[in-house]
Amino acid sequence: MSPEPTVDREISARDENVHRGWSAAFDPIASVEPGSVVRFDCRGAPDGHFDSESTVEALETMSFEGHPLTGPVRVEGAEPGDVLAVEFLEFQHKGFGVSYFYPGDAGKGLLPESFEDPGLHVWDLDGEVGRFVDGIEVPLHPFPGVVGVAPSEPGTHSTVPPRRVGGNIDIKHLTTGSTLYLPVETEGALLSIGDCHAAQGDGEVCVTGIEAPMFVTARLSVRSDMNVDGPQFETTGPFTANGVDGPTYGTAGVADELMEATKLAVRHMVDHLEAVRGLTRDEAYLLCSAAVDLKINQVVNRPMWTVSAYLPKSIFPGDDTV
Amino acid sequence: MSPEPTVDREISARDENVHRGWSAAFDPIASVEPGSVVRFDCRGAPDGHFDSESTVEALETMSFEGHPLTGPVRVEGAEPGDVLAVEFLEFQHKGFGVSYFYPGDAGKGLLPESFEDPGLHVWDLDGEVGRFVDGIEVPLHPFPGVVGVAPSEPGTHSTVPPRRVGGNIDIKHLTTGSTLYLPVETEGALLSIGDCHAAQGDGEVCVTGIEAPMFVTARLSVRSDMNVDGPQFETTGPFTANGVDGPTYGTAGVADELMEATKLAVRHMVDHLEAVRGLTRDEAYLLCSAAVDLKINQVVNRPMWTVSAYLPKSIFPGDDTV
Repeated sequence: MSPEPTVDREISARDENVHRGWSAAFDPIASVEPGSVVRFDCRGAPDGHFDSESTVEALETMSFEGHPLTGPVRVEGAEPGDVLAVEFLEFQHKGFGVSYFYPGDAGKGLLPESFEDPGLHVWDLDGEVGRFVDGIEVPLHPFPGVVGVAPSEPGTHSTVPPRRVGGNIDIKHLTTGSTLYLPVETEGALLSIGDCHAAQGDGEVCVTGIEAPMFVTARLSVRSDMNVDGPQFETTGPFTANGVDGPTYGTAGVADELMEATKLAVRHMVDHLEAVRGLTRDEAYLLCSAAVDLKINQVVNRPMWTVSAYLPKSIFPGDDTV
Repeated sequence: MSPEPTVDREISARDENVHRGWSAAFDPIASVEPGSVVRFDCRGAPDGHFDSESTVEALETMSFEGHPLTGPVRVEGAEPGDVLAVEFLEFQHKGFGVSYFYPGDAGKGLLPESFEDPGLHVWDLDGEVGRFVDGIEVPLHPFPGVVGVAPSEPGTHSTVPPRRVGGNIDIKHLTTGSTLYLPVETEGALLSIGDCHAAQGDGEVCVTGIEAPMFVTARLSVRSDMNVDGPQFETTGPFTANGVDGPTYGTAGVADELMEATKLAVRHMVDHLEAVRGLTRDEAYLLCSAAVDLKINQVVNRPMWTVSAYLPKSIFPGDDTV
């Protein structure tokens, strides 16, 4: 690990520092010079609704009025047309996370039609791994699910969909050492961060990663020499569970519509996890969302596309099956 | 490298062993016992149209009547409901490959509307790398773009779209050491292989990888204990350019339709390669298809999805910019 970064500004997660929307009209809760290192205390997306003893019944009483985001932080001198560089220096989880999904029409995941009841897993986050069932351990690679600056469009906008200026982009590679570039659309940029995930598969298919409150330390810089029209980033991954290639099981979805190919790939992976690994269907869906990666193999062999889901075998206590 | 596998059967690429469609009615050109190791000589997708001196004008006289595939090979005892396991033991390229695209309405790539003229790059394949322009070297990870068994549907079917029984799936992770599982739909399975790529990015966005004639050595086994409803596979990647995490530049596409998000991500990457790396637009598109990977970051934050394109910085002679 690198030495602990020197923090110029601490932002707590008290109510006055937390908002649940995006707006260029929000007053900044802090103003910092370019190059400053800021440590954000970020609530989890469920905003304290769960604890380590929670059961699936807790989902019945949950309400969601947008992701609680810490910010906005104004970066002095940032002007529309500039790029805000957010260099992630450190993430600190608090030992606890949750993954969950809702079924049917209320479900916002990829396969709501495949589940009749909600599902929940409470994760014990033990240093570098999250503990699932049956001895399965998912390596932790924390990142912010939501990170963005204020859009120029008037009004207050939902935190759920991402947009050109970032937001709920859920790019799992924004890990420690990565730098995110966002187009500035309003004076001071107005950066907010939240919805941290201790781990997530590419796709976040059940609608949650490992949702976890977290401290996020980042250096905020203004780049007038860059020009981006959407989120761009530098990262060193990890692109696999452990940063090196290892045995992986893949399930392909082949269909004439990209979302349908994606659904097929994930359905096949859920089937595989049930049939070969002995997980329940709920567990399989939750594990896909936390640890299975979706890649687009080809989008050119008209009229049929290929999307595959990739399961790292190293998360299982043995590594023996097919 | 593993010791050279003992080959039970050699299949040449002479005309009688090559076909350009899929059909359960095709006569097998060979019949082998389960467990046999077969070495297929596979023509490239352009079927000898190019050589190392070819220029972009050669595209004008190219015709394409389907991928030339070597096969079909009958595997004794394979019955509908079984799974054919194809374990890839060795790929041998022949020192030469091409990438190309067509523009406009004739274009079959992801961004035909962005290009007015066709583009071609002839690759010198030198052992483990393919040479592009400006000192850029793409690591080679050969695999078959097309690998499949005969579908049960009557008639002869195009080689272009992939399907449940495989075909033009373009899964770049079917490298040496990988095993592909395909559902058998006709007696003897009737396996064919072709369209080898010396390298390809996830997405194959311009419509070609590094198209290269190649020898493919594979062990063919019948698995009656498995049940798959589409292509599935074991692989150890590589999931990065060199098998270990390294510096990578990412461009995100955020849109309310998955194909549009994909197009945006690639457009941003083409822009990046032009602006920051000094490539021409044609070169950028060709390089994306050979070496840039598409990942689905999230498909659940309705109504906006995130897809990103990932460029490994290690392919550039320096590793200094942004």
